[in-house]
Amino acid sequence: MNNINDIKKIIVDKPLKLDCGKIINNFPVAYETYGSLNAKKNNAILVFHALTGDQFVSGINPITKKDGWWSYAVGPEKAIDTNKYFVICANVMGGCMGSYGPSNIDPTTNKILGTNFPVITINDMVNAQYNLLDFFKIDQLFCVTGGSMGGMQVLQFVSNFPDKTKIAIPIACTASHSAQNIAFNELGRQSIMADANWVNGNYSNEKLNPDKGLSVARMAAHITYLSKNGLQEKFGRKLQERDDLKFSFDADFQIESYLRYQGSVFVDRFDANSYLYITRAMDYFDLIKQHHGNLSKAFAQSKTKFFVISFTSDWLYPTSENKDIVIALNAIGADVGFVEIESDKGHDSFLLNVPVFLDTLKNYINTSYLNN
Amino acid sequence: MNNINDIKKIIVDKPLKLDCGKIINNFPVAYETYGSLNAKKNNAILVFHALTGDQFVSGINPITKKDGWWSYAVGPEKAIDTNKYFVICANVMGGCMGSYGPSNIDPTTNKILGTNFPVITINDMVNAQYNLLDFFKIDQLFCVTGGSMGGMQVLQFVSNFPDKTKIAIPIACTASHSAQNIAFNELGRQSIMADANWVNGNYSNEKLNPDKGLSVARMAAHITYLSKNGLQEKFGRKLQERDDLKFSFDADFQIESYLRYQGSVFVDRFDANSYLYITRAMDYFDLIKQHHGNLSKAFAQSKTKFFVISFTSDWLYPTSENKDIVIALNAIGADVGFVEIESDKGHDSFLLNVPVFLDTLKNYINTSYLNN
Repeated sequence: MNNINDIKKIIVDKPLKLDCGKIINNFPVAYETYGSLNAKKNNAILVFHALTGDQFVSGINPITKKDGWWSYAVGPEKAIDTNKYFVICANVMGGCMGSYGPSNIDPTTNKILGTNFPVITINDMVNAQYNLLDFFKIDQLFCVTGGSMGGMQVLQFVSNFPDKTKIAIPIACTASHSAQNIAFNELGRQSIMADANWVNGNYSNEKLNPDKGLSVARMAAHITYLSKNGLQEKFGRKLQERDDLKFSFDADFQIESYLRYQGSVFVDRFDANSYLYITRAMDYFDLIKQHHGNLSKAFAQSKTKFFVISFTSDWLYPTSENKDIVIALNAIGADVGFVEIESDKGHDSFLLNVPVFLDTLKNYINTSYLNN
Repeated sequence: MNNINDIKKIIVDKPLKLDCGKIINNFPVAYETYGSLNAKKNNAILVFHALTGDQFVSGINPITKKDGWWSYAVGPEKAIDTNKYFVICANVMGGCMGSYGPSNIDPTTNKILGTNFPVITINDMVNAQYNLLDFFKIDQLFCVTGGSMGGMQVLQFVSNFPDKTKIAIPIACTASHSAQNIAFNELGRQSIMADANWVNGNYSNEKLNPDKGLSVARMAAHITYLSKNGLQEKFGRKLQERDDLKFSFDADFQIESYLRYQGSVFVDRFDANSYLYITRAMDYFDLIKQHHGNLSKAFAQSKTKFFVISFTSDWLYPTSENKDIVIALNAIGADVGFVEIESDKGHDSFLLNVPVFLDTLKNYINTSYLNN
C-alpha cells in the first residue's frame, strides 16, 4: 500500500447521531489489523490512538514510511503479541487517515469539508469505531487499550458498551480534560487559526497550507509530552553543531533544532483542521459530567476488568488524574489494578521504549488471557 | 505623562561593548523612580523587571493606564516601602519602553532597527542599567531585587559589581535557563516569526503588525506562569457565558476566553521584536557557564547579603533551581537566607497578592535596613 486510497475502511451505513445533534450516514471508518482472529473470536484487542496517531500501530506505516506509532508495544512477541492476539486499530473520526474527517470531500458540493465538518466528541469517535465489532462479527473484545486520548476512548468505550470487552487498559489519561489541558490545546488551535493560510479552514480548496501555524501547534504540544527533567537530561543547554552562541535567532540550542524538526515533519503527515477537531474533542471530554458528577456510574453496568497505568513524570495527565479513575472503579467494587511506572520520559513514556512499562503491560494482558 | 516621548531616560555616552562583540554608544536607558534618595544615599533599591515588564513598577503606568506591574509589592507602606526607600527601575535593553531596543530608529538610515538590533544578553542589560548609579551618584545600592528575568539580573549584577549592593533578593529565578525554559521561549519566537506580518522583523517600517503571532506567544507563556492546580481551581471546566458546549471553535471554556484576552491586550503594549530579543537574552543566560561550571565563583568577590525566594507551585523556575543558587552561596560561606513560599499561583506568585510572600519580603528588607 502506498496510497491513501488503498487504506482499508468500512462504510457505516447505519445512521449515527453525533453529540452535536447532527445525524451522519455512510461514513468511512478506516482501520488496520495485525495478527489473526481465532476461531472462538476471543483474542481481539481494539487499540485506540492518541491525538496525532492513526490506525498504523505496528510495522512500517505505509503512508509515512516510518515505524508505526506503537511499535514498541505491538508486534510479534511484544507486549501486545500479534502472534497471539488480533489487533484492530481505527483512525478516529475527525482524523486524516481515511476516516470521516474535515479533509473528506462533501459529496453535495464536491469540495473539501474543512470547517463544515461537525464538531465531534470522544463519544462520537467510540461509537463510530464500535461498528468494527459488527464488521468482524466479534461479540466481545478481549481487550481495549490506548494511551492519552486513546485512554479516554477506552473509558468511553466501557461506559457506552459495558459488556463488550473483557479487560480495559487506559494508559496515561484522564476522565475529564483539565483547565491546563484545555489551555495547551487552545494554544495549538489559536496558532493554526492565526496562520493567514488557514483561511477559516478552507485552505485545501484554496490550495494553501497553514503549515507554519500547525508546526507551532505541534511544538507547543511536544513540550508537554516530555518532562522537564527528561528534556534537561537529553538536551540541557547543548549547542547545535557549533562551539559557541551565534548571537542570532537561528537554532543555537539542540532543543530548538529538535522542536523545529518536530514541527516540520509533523506538517507533512497531519491535517491542520483535523488538529483543531481532535483537540476540541479532547477538551470536550468529561466522563464525570456525562454521569452527572459521579464517575463510578460510568462503569457501574460493566464487569470489565480494568488496569490503569500512569507515569511518574507525566505532567499532562499526571498520576493523580489516573488515580481518580481507579478510585471511581474501587467505589463500585470493580476488578481494577493500578500501577505508576517510574520514567523520566514524561507523557510520551507510553509510546517509548520503557521496559518496565512494556513488561507490565505484557504480563497483565497475557495473565488475563489465560484466565479468559 | 501620556506619551512615550515624555519617559525619563539617560543617554549613556560611554561606549559599552556588548557580549556579541558590538560596541554601542549614546544609547538610552529609560527609567522611573519612586520615593526619595536620602542624604546618605543608602536607601536606594534597584528593581529589575521581568520579560514583559517595564520601568513602571508602581502606581498607574502612564502609558498603559494600568497598575504598575509590581504594585502589590512596591509603594507607600508596602513590602518595598517607597516612604522609606528610593526605588529605581529601568526598562531593560531590548525592551520597548524607551530604552535601547529593536523599535528604536537607526540614525544612519532613519528606519526602525528591527532585527538589525544586536542580540543582547542579561549581562548587557545589567551593564547598561549600572549607568544609573553614576547618574544618581549612588556609590552603593541598598538592595537589588526582581523576579523571574529580574532575578537573573540580580544574580548578574552581583557577579559583575560585587561591592555595589548591600543586599540582593533574587525571586523565582534560575542561574541558567533550562532546556524546557528555552523550549517555551523558542515556541514563542517561532510563533512570532510564523506570522506573515513579521516580515523578517521589518514590520514597523512596512506598517504591519505581527499581532497574531505575538498573541499566541503570550498565550503560551501565560500558561507557564500559572500552576496546573491554580488553573484548575480558578477555571476548571467552567463555561464562558453559556449553559452548554456550543460545538464550535468559539471560546466555550473560561480558560480559552481568558487566554485569548491575555493575548489580545498584550499586543497593544508590547513589541514583537522586543519579545524575540528578550527571550533570546533569557535563553542565553548561564551564570554557571560564565564562571566555568562553578556558580559559587560568580559571588566569591562579594560581601552582598542574599535572600532567595521561590514558590511551591512555580514549575517554570522551580524551587530546586532557586536552591542551586543558595547552595552555591553556601559553598563560599556567604550570608544567604532562603524561603520557599507556599502558593498555588505558580510562577506569577511574585507579581500577585500573596500575603506571606509580601510580608516575608517586607520583613527581610526592613530588618536588613535597620542593620545597614
